[in-house]
Amino acid sequence: MASADLLDTLTPMIVPAILPWIAPVQSGMQAVEARLRQAAADEHILLTAVIDGLLRAGGKRVRPALCLLSAGSFDADFENAVVVAAGIELLHTATLVHDDLIDGASMRRSAPTLNSTWDPDAAVLAGDYLFSRAANLVLQAGDLKVMELFVRTLMVVLNGEIAQRFSRWQIDRKEYYQRIYAKTAAMFVLAMQAPAILAQAESELLEAIVEYGHDVGMAFQIVDDVLDISGSIEQVGKPIGSDLRQGLFTLPAIIYAEANPDDADLLVVLNERDGNHPAIERLIEKVRRAGAVEAAMEEARRLAAQGQSALARLPDSVYVSGMFALAETVVKRQG
Amino acid sequence: MASADLLDTLTPMIVPAILPWIAPVQSGMQAVEARLRQAAADEHILLTAVIDGLLRAGGKRVRPALCLLSAGSFDADFENAVVVAAGIELLHTATLVHDDLIDGASMRRSAPTLNSTWDPDAAVLAGDYLFSRAANLVLQAGDLKVMELFVRTLMVVLNGEIAQRFSRWQIDRKEYYQRIYAKTAAMFVLAMQAPAILAQAESELLEAIVEYGHDVGMAFQIVDDVLDISGSIEQVGKPIGSDLRQGLFTLPAIIYAEANPDDADLLVVLNERDGNHPAIERLIEKVRRAGAVEAAMEEARRLAAQGQSALARLPDSVYVSGMFALAETVVKRQG
Repeated sequence: MASADLLDTLTPMIVPAILPWIAPVQSGMQAVEARLRQAAADEHILLTAVIDGLLRAGGKRVRPALCLLSAGSFDADFENAVVVAAGIELLHTATLVHDDLIDGASMRRSAPTLNSTWDPDAAVLAGDYLFSRAANLVLQAGDLKVMELFVRTLMVVLNGEIAQRFSRWQIDRKEYYQRIYAKTAAMFVLAMQAPAILAQAESELLEAIVEYGHDVGMAFQIVDDVLDISGSIEQVGKPIGSDLRQGLFTLPAIIYAEANPDDADLLVVLNERDGNHPAIERLIEKVRRAGAVEAAMEEARRLAAQGQSALARLPDSVYVSGMFALAETVVKRQG
Repeated sequence: MASADLLDTLTPMIVPAILPWIAPVQSGMQAVEARLRQAAADEHILLTAVIDGLLRAGGKRVRPALCLLSAGSFDADFENAVVVAAGIELLHTATLVHDDLIDGASMRRSAPTLNSTWDPDAAVLAGDYLFSRAANLVLQAGDLKVMELFVRTLMVVLNGEIAQRFSRWQIDRKEYYQRIYAKTAAMFVLAMQAPAILAQAESELLEAIVEYGHDVGMAFQIVDDVLDISGSIEQVGKPIGSDLRQGLFTLPAIIYAEANPDDADLLVVLNERDGNHPAIERLIEKVRRAGAVEAAMEEARRLAAQGQSALARLPDSVYVSGMFALAETVVKRQG
């Protein structure tokens, strides 16, 4: 695949920012893309079409890029790293399909969701199939420990999603950090740790790369949550304030609520627990205008810098420089 | 666990019939039951409660019993066979949770389904979690080939379910056989083949056990489909004729339709494609009264006998005798 084709698959807006860190793994990313496209080629024609559509819709491919950067830094086998990277991206896609179904979301990546275009039942099965296909890809690396890590990560993600269902309309910073770990950082850790296991890296180096994955994953999700509040519908590809409408208090809203516990709209929102209540719109506006957005971004930048400092414990390489640049990009992205 | 407790977990009606073949693997089945109960002990309290409830509701535990019989006949490692058997039962449970959700079913095993008591969204996540936990169990056997077979089987099951969604209101015997292979026989094959792989069985023996699993699995599903037409609500634990109401022509209905292509109710049903149309009730009654039920049972008995004859290629043992008896039970069961 030509490099221009690869770039077509990335969300156009972030391509310029992505380039500095994607450069060292560009050929690997093309191999990942080819693996992803194969992943649905030989099944029921409608399943193939749906999965192909999901993959064409793009996404930032941050997880496979991280996985390949880690593989480069540990000199892991290229082919094995590529299938693991593709498997992680497919796992991520599977969780998005079921998330959108559960949230009743109609938009993702500026495109209609599977549950809104196909039908919700088919979205259940297509998501299930993507889980199994993702596992099938990772198995091709032939490493039981990597497969165990992959499955344990999926358990963490799912247990976190179930816990989230029972923590709506609650303001709890500790619960928020647990939630974004399960939702995002756990899979970033998987992406960094799997190649280190493939390459049988020393435990000190493994710990450093796990710390980096954790910190950058947490920062990535905080930025995502900030954009849900502060962005425009064009930037995030879905309606603004959707978290709060679903009763999920993310970091900006938590910071605002902690600073303004007696805000009248906040009290109404917590009392009514109704995503369509007019007080929700007013609360979203207040969080946008307050310093809460900037304070949350400050926390994201702190985590990204902490992740960068963990990289100092790894031997210097073009791949580690790529990780360093990626941590930078994560907290600067606009969509 | 005492043997009486184990029997409590089986559907009461079929316990007497099950006893002859379960005897050689009774201690293994108790170990499987213990593993299943552990499988949800350490997660979000509501997830734990839901999975425990699903497992307590019982089910026939045919797949783990088959797996243990195969393990006994090949002298596979006991602990590894137990985790694989438990993983297969959990995989089966996961597919049921999503099936019931998709079908909008409100009853299963004479009890309310998860989607009707908890909520549909939670049923998506609980099913996903069960998939990951099932994979986690099978991984504990430490065999990559077994894990590959497990994941490939899941892909077959899911691709089959998706194909089924696009084959409603069609009378196609070939498609029916493909469908019941994907739905049931593939998992029976997994249960028989996995222990043979664990024990590194010779290829001739492996082929024989795969044939047995295939044939008994096909027979099992045909009997299930016959009971859906010919049984009582007490026997099958859910409303009668539910397949046909969903547009799924199973073997008895296919046999009836092949023999009576001009039946007025049949033509209305195929034309209207409406599960609530009064012609459906009349068609179900006709299929019940015609020789179609007996002809379908004849096909199930033929397949079960074919599976039994494959067993002649295995060294004689108490486990092989158990498999022989199980093939008998499958075509005699009433629920």
